[in-house]
Amino acid sequence: MEKVGIDAISFDVPKIYLDIKDLAALRGIDAAKLEFGLGLKKMAFPDVHQDVVVFAANAVRKLILQEGLKAEEIDRIYLGTESSFDASKPIASYLLKVLEESIFEPGSLENCDVVDLTFACIGGVDALQNSLDYIRVNPGKKAIVVTTDIAKYDLASSGEYTQGAGALAMLISKNPQIISFDQDWTVSTSGVFDFFKPKRTVTKEALGFTTNEPWQDVLESEISVTKDQPVFDGQYSNTCYLERTKNAYLKLKQVKKAGERFYEESECIVMHLPYCFQARRNFVELYIEDSPLKFELATSESKSDFVKTVSKSEPYQALIQDKILPTEIASAEIGNLYTGSVFMSFLSALSYFLKEQKNLESSQILFIAYGSGSKSKSFVGQLSENWKEKISQVNLFESLAARVALNTESYLKLHKKELKSSIVEVSNEYVLDRIEDKEPNLLGARYYKLV
Amino acid sequence: MEKVGIDAISFDVPKIYLDIKDLAALRGIDAAKLEFGLGLKKMAFPDVHQDVVVFAANAVRKLILQEGLKAEEIDRIYLGTESSFDASKPIASYLLKVLEESIFEPGSLENCDVVDLTFACIGGVDALQNSLDYIRVNPGKKAIVVTTDIAKYDLASSGEYTQGAGALAMLISKNPQIISFDQDWTVSTSGVFDFFKPKRTVTKEALGFTTNEPWQDVLESEISVTKDQPVFDGQYSNTCYLERTKNAYLKLKQVKKAGERFYEESECIVMHLPYCFQARRNFVELYIEDSPLKFELATSESKSDFVKTVSKSEPYQALIQDKILPTEIASAEIGNLYTGSVFMSFLSALSYFLKEQKNLESSQILFIAYGSGSKSKSFVGQLSENWKEKISQVNLFESLAARVALNTESYLKLHKKELKSSIVEVSNEYVLDRIEDKEPNLLGARYYKLV
Repeated sequence: MEKVGIDAISFDVPKIYLDIKDLAALRGIDAAKLEFGLGLKKMAFPDVHQDVVVFAANAVRKLILQEGLKAEEIDRIYLGTESSFDASKPIASYLLKVLEESIFEPGSLENCDVVDLTFACIGGVDALQNSLDYIRVNPGKKAIVVTTDIAKYDLASSGEYTQGAGALAMLISKNPQIISFDQDWTVSTSGVFDFFKPKRTVTKEALGFTTNEPWQDVLESEISVTKDQPVFDGQYSNTCYLERTKNAYLKLKQVKKAGERFYEESECIVMHLPYCFQARRNFVELYIEDSPLKFELATSESKSDFVKTVSKSEPYQALIQDKILPTEIASAEIGNLYTGSVFMSFLSALSYFLKEQKNLESSQILFIAYGSGSKSKSFVGQLSENWKEKISQVNLFESLAARVALNTESYLKLHKKELKSSIVEVSNEYVLDRIEDKEPNLLGARYYKLV
Repeated sequence: MEKVGIDAISFDVPKIYLDIKDLAALRGIDAAKLEFGLGLKKMAFPDVHQDVVVFAANAVRKLILQEGLKAEEIDRIYLGTESSFDASKPIASYLLKVLEESIFEPGSLENCDVVDLTFACIGGVDALQNSLDYIRVNPGKKAIVVTTDIAKYDLASSGEYTQGAGALAMLISKNPQIISFDQDWTVSTSGVFDFFKPKRTVTKEALGFTTNEPWQDVLESEISVTKDQPVFDGQYSNTCYLERTKNAYLKLKQVKKAGERFYEESECIVMHLPYCFQARRNFVELYIEDSPLKFELATSESKSDFVKTVSKSEPYQALIQDKILPTEIASAEIGNLYTGSVFMSFLSALSYFLKEQKNLESSQILFIAYGSGSKSKSFVGQLSENWKEKISQVNLFESLAARVALNTESYLKLHKKELKSSIVEVSNEYVLDRIEDKEPNLLGARYYKLV
């Protein structure tokens, strides 16, 4: 079968960020704990005119312009998100309309198949896997995989410093110029409540009503309220992440009939990063499990002490520097991208390797993705001959360096949705123009434009 | 390449229904208009203990028991829904947990890949298409495709008589025993607002607050309220349905290099049925477009009069009896299943052909699916040698005949969520046991059990 994989990549994040030092000061936390303990530096935050469609459209537009794609070449757009604002109409259908209106012609994407896939932070990886199969079965076709999310947590909550926002877009084709993926993918799934975004039920009784009278057109005895912020248990979610990623990785090793230290075959280890240091903190247990250290662990008096010791050992620290640090650089500057985080880790590593002028043609990259709820997928790919040229077009670190810092007052107002106009001037990007609030048959319809 | 398609099928709908005559009497509508004009007879309505996970679990359990499936044989469960209650955690992950707990063992489905796909009523077809590609690339694997939805509309609204609820489950494999699908699928997409389920924004100001004080833990200046009921424009949605299905069908005809009246090659025409007579009312325009009638249409003085005349013509009436009526029988008894409707149409037709003792081995079936927002997909499949035996296990018409009628009082209370206990006794089925409302890290978590 022909090689299939990522032929081109692009991204979009807000032009504004909150410095982690400012957040630490606001909350009375030790900044060093966030910066050196968790690796956090800056947190991307959406401006007034931005939502997940805006980020997705910006990222896909960059991809289309960069690659000179014609409308008829785009056979599908598969989108991973956990920030949808509609239970029925996919974000991808908004995106299609925006692209037709601003880049192509109305109707020009009529034969393009679009859909949303939802499984917390791993929905984009699911979109990728299915699009790879699609290209394998239809080798002449091209697909775009998009991830777009806003990771928002309540003010002063334990998740506040892990916020972030943005989108990535990837062109998937045969003979790809960045990376081609092996067909063996492994999965570890368990139905758990580590992190989710349920409708929250408020009874009319709790609101003080004595009868079931209509409230905001709701005729039922209860009201469903949704929040962008998740319901979660951070520590438990970390345990789920560890169990799932370990099992998916060990299963891949088994499928690949690989010997000890399978990860050593790969140039770097790309994992989902809910915060910058998540991978380096967690991979140590996979590292132990995949070496004779596991026998030492089994007989050690304190499991956690043993893991801590290995974690600080010279070989593991070298592994971090070599195979994990390159994936973390962008995360430290952006924060959590949910579905996009694992792909941003990949882009970060390649951008770093490009800067270092590393020759990595045919080098293997190991992926271990995770989504709460919970699922991990593990797979490998090999870099293509032309990867440097393709990555040099993305200008990841340059773009991140050009952003503007938010002051804490603006941050708080933005967070509470108390601002009416954007923080930075809008230019060469999409905006959420308006949300219909009068016409009953269109209530909630969102309209976008390119400015 | 090997044949891939549907190897087995099962379904689940509520055990209670509202007779359309009773709804007509309640609303002062002419019952004949609903029954003979739209084809409606009964409307399935969820009982107190039921939601989309319950329907999905019931349908998948039937499939597993019927096929004697072992946990390790199920490589993926892909689920289409537009009734999710969570923006992050897929319905499929709830389903996985329920199946492990009630049929298999905890952890037994660990290597099963599950995800939700969202595009209104066509998300299940997207799940099917991707699962077919997955089996083509991995011929030894098996997938389950699930559709589950509750079509709910406001009391006394124009959509009320098109309500319905339920799930279907299909086993997808190579050498399938019911139907195998051709690889050519066509798509027609347009980003429109004919029907959607957006978050609705209510400002605190509109609720009478003068400052942005917290309301039900919402710190933002606005509250997002969601309703199970869609925002829609019925007439416009019908136009979108017609345009999309026509274009997808004509594109398929072109790809197949078929001559005039391509539909004649198929034993029946399976379309998405938002209400029973949607296909027979709309297909007439595809029928005209795919024959010399289109030239007559072009020169006719009144397009609508011409379409009406053709619609009543003997050949078109014969086509309805022959190729559409068999797909409608279940819809008349259930109502709209959203993602499941197109598959229920298929199951209805096969159940009818079985009753008629038709020999249809190798016969072609034409599918024209639709999802608002909007997208249509068209494709064909050929029935397998063993289809009768597999369909006879489903007992579609027998199950539907065994349901219990709701009185209008119970219907109204159920609709308004004013009942605390189920209408009919729960037996050999799943129930929504409880929704967590205290533990902050689990608020909104849903727990299910098999009774």
